[in-house]
Formats: sequence, C-alpha cells, structure tokens
Amino acid sequence: MIRFNNDYNHGAHPQILKALAETNDQSYCGYGLDSLCQKASEEIKKYLDCPTAAIHYLVGGTQTNYTVIAAALRPYQSVISAESGHIHAHETGAVENTGHKIHTLPGKDGKITAAQIEAVAADYAESTIPEHITQPKMVYISFPTEYGTLYSLNELEAISSVCRKYDLYLFVDGARMGYGLGSVKNDVSLSDLARLTDAFYLGGTKCGTLFGEALVILNPKLQPDFRSCIKQNGAMLAKGWLLGLQFYTMFRDGLYFKITRKADEYAMRIKEAFAEKGIPAYIESFTNQQFVVVTNRQKEQLAENFIFEFEGKIDEDHSCIRFCTSWSTTEEEVRALTEEIRRL
Amino acid sequence: MIRFNNDYNHGAHPQILKALAETNDQSYCGYGLDSLCQKASEEIKKYLDCPTAAIHYLVGGTQTNYTVIAAALRPYQSVISAESGHIHAHETGAVENTGHKIHTLPGKDGKITAAQIEAVAADYAESTIPEHITQPKMVYISFPTEYGTLYSLNELEAISSVCRKYDLYLFVDGARMGYGLGSVKNDVSLSDLARLTDAFYLGGTKCGTLFGEALVILNPKLQPDFRSCIKQNGAMLAKGWLLGLQFYTMFRDGLYFKITRKADEYAMRIKEAFAEKGIPAYIESFTNQQFVVVTNRQKEQLAENFIFEFEGKIDEDHSCIRFCTSWSTTEEEVRALTEEIRRL
Amino acid sequence: MIRFNNDYNHGAHPQILKALAETNDQSYCGYGLDSLCQKASEEIKKYLDCPTAAIHYLVGGTQTNYTVIAAALRPYQSVISAESGHIHAHETGAVENTGHKIHTLPGKDGKITAAQIEAVAADYAESTIPEHITQPKMVYISFPTEYGTLYSLNELEAISSVCRKYDLYLFVDGARMGYGLGSVKNDVSLSDLARLTDAFYLGGTKCGTLFGEALVILNPKLQPDFRSCIKQNGAMLAKGWLLGLQFYTMFRDGLYFKITRKADEYAMRIKEAFAEKGIPAYIESFTNQQFVVVTNRQKEQLAENFIFEFEGKIDEDHSCIRFCTSWSTTEEEVRALTEEIRRL
Amino acid sequence: MIRFNNDYNHGAHPQILKALAETNDQSYCGYGLDSLCQKASEEIKKYLDCPTAAIHYLVGGTQTNYTVIAAALRPYQSVISAESGHIHAHETGAVENTGHKIHTLPGKDGKITAAQIEAVAADYAESTIPEHITQPKMVYISFPTEYGTLYSLNELEAISSVCRKYDLYLFVDGARMGYGLGSVKNDVSLSDLARLTDAFYLGGTKCGTLFGEALVILNPKLQPDFRSCIKQNGAMLAKGWLLGLQFYTMFRDGLYFKITRKADEYAMRIKEAFAEKGIPAYIESFTNQQFVVVTNRQKEQLAENFIFEFEGKIDEDHSCIRFCTSWSTTEEEVRALTEEIRRL
Repeated sequence: MIRFNNDYNHGAHPQILKALAETNDQSYCGYGLDSLCQKASEEIKKYLDCPTAAIHYLVGGTQTNYTVIAAALRPYQSVISAESGHIHAHETGAVENTGHKIHTLPGKDGKITAAQIEAVAADYAESTIPEHITQPKMVYISFPTEYGTLYSLNELEAISSVCRKYDLYLFVDGARMGYGLGSVKNDVSLSDLARLTDAFYLGGTKCGTLFGEALVILNPKLQPDFRSCIKQNGAMLAKGWLLGLQFYTMFRDGLYFKITRKADEYAMRIKEAFAEKGIPAYIESFTNQQFVVVTNRQKEQLAENFIFEFEGKIDEDHSCIRFCTSWSTTEEEVRALTEEIRRL
Repeated sequence: MIRFNNDYNHGAHPQILKALAETNDQSYCGYGLDSLCQKASEEIKKYLDCPTAAIHYLVGGTQTNYTVIAAALRPYQSVISAESGHIHAHETGAVENTGHKIHTLPGKDGKITAAQIEAVAADYAESTIPEHITQPKMVYISFPTEYGTLYSLNELEAISSVCRKYDLYLFVDGARMGYGLGSVKNDVSLSDLARLTDAFYLGGTKCGTLFGEALVILNPKLQPDFRSCIKQNGAMLAKGWLLGLQFYTMFRDGLYFKITRKADEYAMRIKEAFAEKGIPAYIESFTNQQFVVVTNRQKEQLAENFIFEFEGKIDEDHSCIRFCTSWSTTEEEVRALTEEIRRL
Repeated sequence: MIRFNNDYNHGAHPQILKALAETNDQSYCGYGLDSLCQKASEEIKKYLDCPTAAIHYLVGGTQTNYTVIAAALRPYQSVISAESGHIHAHETGAVENTGHKIHTLPGKDGKITAAQIEAVAADYAESTIPEHITQPKMVYISFPTEYGTLYSLNELEAISSVCRKYDLYLFVDGARMGYGLGSVKNDVSLSDLARLTDAFYLGGTKCGTLFGEALVILNPKLQPDFRSCIKQNGAMLAKGWLLGLQFYTMFRDGLYFKITRKADEYAMRIKEAFAEKGIPAYIESFTNQQFVVVTNRQKEQLAENFIFEFEGKIDEDHSCIRFCTSWSTTEEEVRALTEEIRRL
Repeated sequence: MIRFNNDYNHGAHPQILKALAETNDQSYCGYGLDSLCQKASEEIKKYLDCPTAAIHYLVGGTQTNYTVIAAALRPYQSVISAESGHIHAHETGAVENTGHKIHTLPGKDGKITAAQIEAVAADYAESTIPEHITQPKMVYISFPTEYGTLYSLNELEAISSVCRKYDLYLFVDGARMGYGLGSVKNDVSLSDLARLTDAFYLGGTKCGTLFGEALVILNPKLQPDFRSCIKQNGAMLAKGWLLGLQFYTMFRDGLYFKITRKADEYAMRIKEAFAEKGIPAYIESFTNQQFVVVTNRQKEQLAENFIFEFEGKIDEDHSCIRFCTSWSTTEEEVRALTEEIRRL
C-alpha cells in the first residue's frame, strides 16, 4: 500500500536525520536560546527583507495557531476565518478554549476576500452597540488553504490593506507554506508575506522536518514577551535546538523550497492524470493536495493499492477524495498512482 | 416620546417596589440562602411537577447563559445554537470566553429543528476522528426566540427526544418566558419545560422585576456544586433575598403570567394595526416583539412620537424595525401607537 | 436577634428606595448609557480631581474584581495580593477562572507593603528566565482590608511609587470604601486614590445601596473598550439606570460619606466596650469591622441576642468573632450590644 | 566546558536515533493511532499490573501537566501542590491559564504530606460556605520532586489513602521518573504508582528521548475523550509514531531503567565527593539532582570547567548550586567533576 493520505506520514528528510545524528554528542542550552535556533533564524531572515522580525520555533500547527491568537487578542476580541479554516474545522475548539470567538465567513475554495473582511470590520466600526458583540481584531488565513488553493499577491495586498485600514492583525497559517511557495501558480514570496502580514509561519511538520513550525512575527506590537506565551501554552520544547537544527538544515541552502516544489510537481502529474481520465477536480488546486470526485467503483479500485483520504459523499454514487504528495513522495509512487488512474 | 424599543426600559412592577419597601427594615442572611428565596422556589415549583428541581436566582441573562454552559460542559465540548441565538449574537463572546465553541446552525425565524440537531450529533457520533472537532453536548434555544417566535410543544418534544438519544443537554433561555407562555399561539407549559429540558430559566428583568432570572435545573447531573459556579462567575448577589422577594411576588399569585399575557395582547393589537395598514411583518410573531418592514417615510413618521428599535435596512427604501410591549406598557400607549399606525 | 454579622444584611438606605419609587414610572435607555449614570458620574468626579476618569457601574464586588483584572492583564501576567485578599480567599477562584495567577504575599493585618511588592517586581525584572514564571503586572489591595485595617497615605504613596517604577497597575478594592474614608484614623481621600491608583471602586452593596459598585478607571490604558469587558463578563445590568440612580442618590449630597462615618462611630463604641471589658482585639481596626477574641462562654452569651460571624478557633477556650456595623445599624442596636458586652 | 546544568542538554540515547533512522522510510498513520504507539503501550503495561490503564504520548511536561489538570477538574475546582511544585513555580501560570487555582502548601524538601492534604480537604468538607472557595479535587506531586527527593512507599500509600477518602485525584508528575525509580533509596515501583494514583507520567525528555512524556491514566473516570483534550491543548503530535517509537525503544528491554539508574550512580559519586570535602548538601537528594551550598570562591573555581545551575544566594558568601547528571553523562565527565571537587 502506498500512502497519499496526507503529507505527514513519513519521518523526516534524510538530511534532517543526518544532522540530528551529527549533533547528538553535543550539549546545548535549553528552551530555544541555543546557537542552532539563532543560525536557523538568520537563514530564514535572508528571505524576509525585515531585520526586525522575531522568529520562534514551536512544535505543531494547532499549538502555533492558538498561541499566536491568544497572545494577540484581548478577551473580547475575535479572529476572522473562513469556515473551512483549520482553526475552526480541525482543532477541537482550541481557539475558543483560549477564550476567543472565531468569526467565520463562508469561503470560496477555502479563501475569503478583502471585501468580506471589510464588511465585518465596517459593521463593527459602525455599530451603535459594539459592546454587545465581539470586536474583530485579527484575520486568519491559510497559505495554501485547507483545499490547496492559493491567495494571489493581489488578493493578499487587498486583504492586508483592509487589515491596516481597520487595525486588524493579519496572521497566515503556513503549515504547508513550502507547497504554496513551490506552486506553478504562486506569485507570492516570503518577503511579500513579511511585508503584508503581522505574523506567519513556515510549516516544518508537513514540509520535511520531524516536527516543528517556524513562527515569524513581523509586527513589533506582537513581539514583547512572546516567549512567555510559548511557555504558558506548553509549546516551548525543552531541547529547543532540535527545532533550530531542523530549520537550519531546511533553510541554509534552500532544501525547504526544493523538496516541496518537487512534491508540487508530482501533484501536478496526478492532477493531469485525473483530468485526462475525465475525473473532475472537486476544487482546482495547484499545490500538493488534490481533491477529486470519483465514482464508488473508482474509489474501490484506487483503494486496492493506495491510501488516500475520504472527504465526504457527493451523492449516492460519488465521493470526494484527497491525494496528497509530500517531500517524501517518490517518482515510483507517483508513477504507480498515475498508471492506476489511467486504468480506472 | 413613548418607548416601545425594548422590554426593559422601566423599573419594576409596583408590587415589587412595594414588597421591597415593606421588607427594607428586615435583615436577612446573604447569598440566596434566605427564607424569601426558599418561598419563591416553593411557588415556582408548583408549576413544575418536578420536586427534585433545583432553583437558583441570578442577576442577568448573559450571566445565566454562560454560567450554565460553563458548568455543564467539559473543555472540548460545544453548545449548539441558532445563528440568531442570544449567546452567539449579543453577548460579546461570553460563552467563548469560558472556553467553549458555539456550534451555530442557520435558523428559520430564529428556531432550529430536531433534524438539524440530529444531523450534528450523528456527524460527531460517526466521525472517525472525533478528537479533531468539538463534541456537541448541549443545545441552547430561546423561548420565545430573539424574533418573538415560539417552539410548539411538538417541536420541543422532538428536540428533547433527539437530545436524549444523543446525550445532549437541552437548555432553554427564558429571558422572555412570560411573553412566550402568555401568547395566544403557545401550547407549552412550565411543566412541559420541566419534563423536556435539563435547565431553563424564567426571566425577570424583561418580565416585571428590577432584575433577576430564576434558573431551574432539572437534570440532577447539573445540580451539584452549582452555587460554586454562580459565585465564581460573579453571579451571586450578596443580598440574594432581593431576588427571592421579587420572584416570590411574581409567582405567589400568578402576577408573572398576568402582566406578560397583557403585554402579549397589546402586541397583538399593534400587529393587527400594521396588518390592516398593509405593512408586512418581517417575521410572524405572536409574542411581545413585533418586527415590521416599513418605508423610510413611515419610519420617520413613527419616530416623531415613538422610540422603537432599528433592526436593519431591507433596501434603500425599507427598514426592519421592532416594537416591543412589556409589563409596563399601558392601554394609552398602545392606543397612541395604533392610531399613529392608522395615520401612516 | 440583632444582626451584626455583616454589612449587607439590610436592603438599602430609605433615600434609595424613595428614589426608586419616584422614578419607577420613567423609562430609560439601557445598559448604563442613561442620564442617571451620567449624573452619578458627575457627582463622583467632584471628589476625584481627575476629569479624564472613566466611571462604570457594575453589580457586585467579585464581578468587578475579576472583570478589571481580566481586562488589564495579558494571559501570562499575574496580580499580586495579600493572602487574605478577597480575590484569593473568598471568590471561588474567579480570577484564576479568567486565566490569571494570583501572586500571594503574606500580609500583616491584611496589608502588604511597598517593599514586599518591590521584591517581587525586582525578582522578575532580574530573572534570567522570566518566560518560565508569570509576570507580575498588577497589585490588588483592599481599602479597608478584609480585616478592617487601613493603608495610610504614606503607605499608599509608597506602594504607588513602586508600582510606577515597575510598570504595575495598582487596583484598589473599595467594597467597603465608605467605612475606610469615614474612619477616625484615615488620612486618605478619594482624590488621593485618584492620583495614586490606576483603578478603584466605591462599594455600594455594603455601603447603603441595594447592590452595585462604582468603578473608577484612572489610567487611560485601561479605559478603551471597557464596556465590552463588562458585557462579556455578565456584569452589564440591562436596567443600568438603577445603578446610576443609587449612586447619584449616594453622592449628590454626601449621603455615602455620612452614613458610613456613622457606622464607623458605632463600631468605635463597640470597640471601646470590648476594650473596657478587657476583651482583646484580634486585630486593631478603626473601621466598621471589629474582630475580637472571646471565651466560649462569652461567645455563647453574646449569641443569645446577637448574630455575629465566627471567624475561627484560637484555642480550645477562645474564638475569634467579628461584629460589623453598617449604614443600617441603629443607635439602639449598638446600645443593646455594648450593654451586653458590659454584662459579659 | 562540561554541562551538569540540567538533564536535557543532549539529544537522545543512540538507540533512539538508530530506531528513527531505521523507520524513516516507513509511513504511518497519524496522531498516535499507529502500531508503534500501541507496541510501546504494551511494553509499558507490563510494568503496571493494570490492564485497563490508558496510555497517551504527549510532547512535553508542562503540556502534560496542564492538559491532565484541565481535563480532570470542573471550573471551580483546584489542584493542591507544594509551593515548589513545577506547575506552581516554573510553568508561567499554565494551570491558571486553563482556569484553575493551585492550592499551594509549604513543602519540606519539595514534598507535602498526607496530613497537610487531609487538613485542606477536611476544611473544605466542613466549610459552611464552600461556594466561596475553590474545591480541592486533585493532588499534584512530583516523583522525584524538583529537589530530587523521593516519596517513600509509605508516604505515597498515606497520600493515596487521603485522596480516596476525600475523593481527590492523585496525579504524579514523573518528568524525572527514571531517576526516581533508579535511586538507591527508592522503594516505589511502577505497579505501586499504578495502584495508588489516578494518573502519572513517565518522562522521556529528561530520561533519554528527544522529547515526549508517556501519560498513564489509571482512573477510568479520567479516560473518556482524553484524546480530545490532547488535541485541544496542542499536545497531539501529527507524527505520533515518533513518540511511540521512542518509548518502545526505551521500554522493550528496560533501557529506560538502565540508563537512569546509571545517572543516579554518577550523582551519588558527586554527592560523596562534596560530602568528603565537607561541602554541605542544600537538600539531601539520592537522585540525579544534587543541590549543594558552596562559597563564592568554590563556585568560581567550579565554573571554570563546568556548567551548573545557580539556584540562589544563601548569604553574601554562599550560594546554592545544582549539578545534574543524566542518561548522557559519562564516566569521564563525572571523574573530571569529582576530581575538581577534591581540588576545591
């Protein structure tokens, strides 16, 4: 059986394991104050064009999301998100557990628009009884989204502009950032994100590390005492250098970008195979997640040799299923899948 | 100017003030452990047909809502509500502030159905990864709803039945309970509520007292240590007997029912006046809140002598506005309004 | 039986009830945005010498305490309090329920010192790993304290000075403020409090109103959106004018000060009676609460005609008990008690 | 420089790295539902004599502590801990951030007694106004404690007995469990812990893994939906098998016990070296942490070649410092240190 069910079903890129082995006899000071975290941050900053950025390393995505949101908001403030946003749909109410409402907006292909955000912010600004509703203060978007789609640079510029107009923080969940940046359709760079957002993160878990997310805080208002927030939320790894080492390995020579771009290319081959077969995409994605609508019979046939994710029934005869490539996907696995698709 | 803007713009029914004056020289023990609270509870229990019910007196509705919800749920559990539910739309994220997600459902006329609730509960029950989403554990409905509409006994029976099937608590916000019970269209009694729900409350603030809500907890699982929850949430009035006294005054001889039924009758006269004039209801309500769609010109004319609530624009020329009657509304005020409506 | 057990066992000063009766036919807008709240605030401001103070009316003390603390602190920040502080000892963990640690200090007679506070703040400032401990950011003191003792103006100046040096907020719980201001030993004025603190409140519940606390926020940093915090914490009374009316009645002609000063005088007579009898004070208080150490026999004899509060056993033969006077205490009640004391 | 500053300054035992390398080409299902976690749990259960135990793998200690506590307690309940308890002293208010008060008790050498716990529980049980204070519902102890001391089996039996008498949960923080079990003075086994507690954990981070804690939940009341609590608190590792693999490696043949026992032996040699030199222990510890009181001059001399932890000043001339051994400490490092001690 070959797994295409998600992008976190293998350990880590071999260079990561090698780096771990090479440093295992070294001793380091704890809690992310070590030299490896520092070196990783220097490498990442080369892409940002923002010398005042503060970079922190946390263990996982859910943790990073609620730690940032809880640190940024006062108790009566809410965070705007697409209904399909990970914080709303897949994190067991972690954000609400920190006391904050998620103000959901219906998304299109997992995305929300500057106009939608402005409508919410303007409503609040014009409310005669604002004290009876939560104050929208942050916008959460995913890049790429949970459906593999991408915000264009224009769309991001527009969202950022609305956020600044209404004094909202813009926070980008980059759990799959590599696959976003590596897409053939992408026109957004890390320095764009650094310029347009208040905080974003570079996902490691899904992009080649054993675990870990590199959080970049641009807005100086969100920087003070952030390490206290990390610790309080159980997100401060005792052996923090393990995170620094992994991200240093990923960014010192662009490995992060290379392996995720490759995964995107594989995904495009799978996409084409489905298209050629006339099997429709559920959503047009140009990143490593491919959602397609198959018949029950096709699903069964694919399930003989491949593990993929069942997303839901479309009707009695059809289902939406997801195939993910990742940094660990091989040429052979992709070939096996595309050949099977052609045989459907 | 005559106020029809809400049902909490006057102090209290004269009998309440009289009772306060008569007992002002007495001293009582604190925190609701006094004889007046006990007497009030005995009176209320006469309507419940449930000797094991526990009754507590809290100060306000928002407070009662989040105190009950926070007491009932474990951290990863959520409460189901209509999008128009007061806890979602008008309480500044108080429920989320206690750590819980509100699972919203689109309502029809402010109501949700047993089928909608069952769909949510069944989805969770069948989920293969329930730990990634919140567990629905309580259903919150308002009786009457925020739009003045009512659940029929059949509808309540069906909702209660689904709740029991899926082990969900059913909690009824009765901030305007009197106006619900007094409606010509109502077929639900307090003993029905006691039989079908796990907790509900009898609103005082909007139904004739200075302030206060009488919370009835039916389900024995929700009863232990509830006073600790009240205190922790700042909802335990030091001079608790002031609440007991007010509810005793309301329930010892049915004053609560009488004055709210009267307000409903007045609302029906206003409803008829609008109907006769051909001014459409925004929502068909048979309780003390009347939502109508008026032209800008009609709105301006009404605003000359009456204060009402602006609910939102329908289009360039039309608005939805709300007229509320209450226990304090007088025959003269209603006549003045209905005559003005006829002159529109 | 005559109650000296606490200062909240009677309804309200007759002028309050009179004012309620006189305005009961009026209608007001809700949530504290009415003319009566405004008038009350104007009266209170006359004592403050701080035109930019923001005044809000909340229902009770516990509620006021945690609402202010939760509004002021970020998630990893803590509030310093004496171990005997009301927030630590009598509020069911309400502050922790909002997510914040109370950093307790051993008090002397219910008071903490500037030196103690400075030691905590300096420890944090000098910590090499501050992210592993909470950041002290607020100091909570009670005036008078839970033991009836008072901070002198010198002590308050010193505490305020330390707070400003370390950027800590100073918040004063004034649930019994009237009895503090009225004490023969007091040298602190409301304008001193306005000058030296960031927020304090004037207790109503224990000082002559039916209920209610007038919160004065001096520090402009704590003012924005405070009404959202009130609403979210269930502390916004729908009929807010009931609070405004009560505080207007109390402050328009100094009634608040007069009735509490009288209660203090009565307490001094009780204090003297015990002293003359050789019954020792547990703590030297010059406000309305008197703590004395009596023998079991004396306790029994006093209990025949008086209700007082048992505070704890001192040894097999002695107990600490508390007698409270209040605005409702009468000359006759005091005489009855002092005569009984003389007969012990 | 040789690090004796803590027990988490090296990566992982070589067998862990080897196991990671060997499985890196395998794919696994996510979130701890994999075969490796299952195998690890089977190995651990062999030591427990409790087939119904539920075992979960979390990333770090702070996270495990607050996740367990938040899952177990209702909002008004508190957890009893020594003042020196990690949850009180080193976790940035993480427990309070979940809404719960820590009821601290003065410890002796980092330990609290059954009698102290009983006094708190009895006080609550006998309180006439329990709703004004938090309800103690859990006892948190560390084994070994933060000072390296151990509870004897007798002490644990007594504490467990009090907990059961008063219906309190007993939760043991075992971040350094290996070093406790391996001590020459220890008479407690894992099956004792399984019999006497409601939950405890086997620390990995400080005992030879890269990271991770194995939580053992004995009490069936604490088991339902615990995975939801893990996820909500950001403690569910996407690649959960990395935890399973590490604990399987540690427990399949007793490696966990062997390497920590060795570290304890090294610590005893350091302890003896100080004792022979007449340098007093700050606290008598028979586990891997050694606290000694040295002169400033001794401290400086030791600091030339060794990194240790400064714990605090004793007086102008003396300091308390800590030396930790760990699974990664070598014979050579210990010899270097003991020789230096002899040269002091």
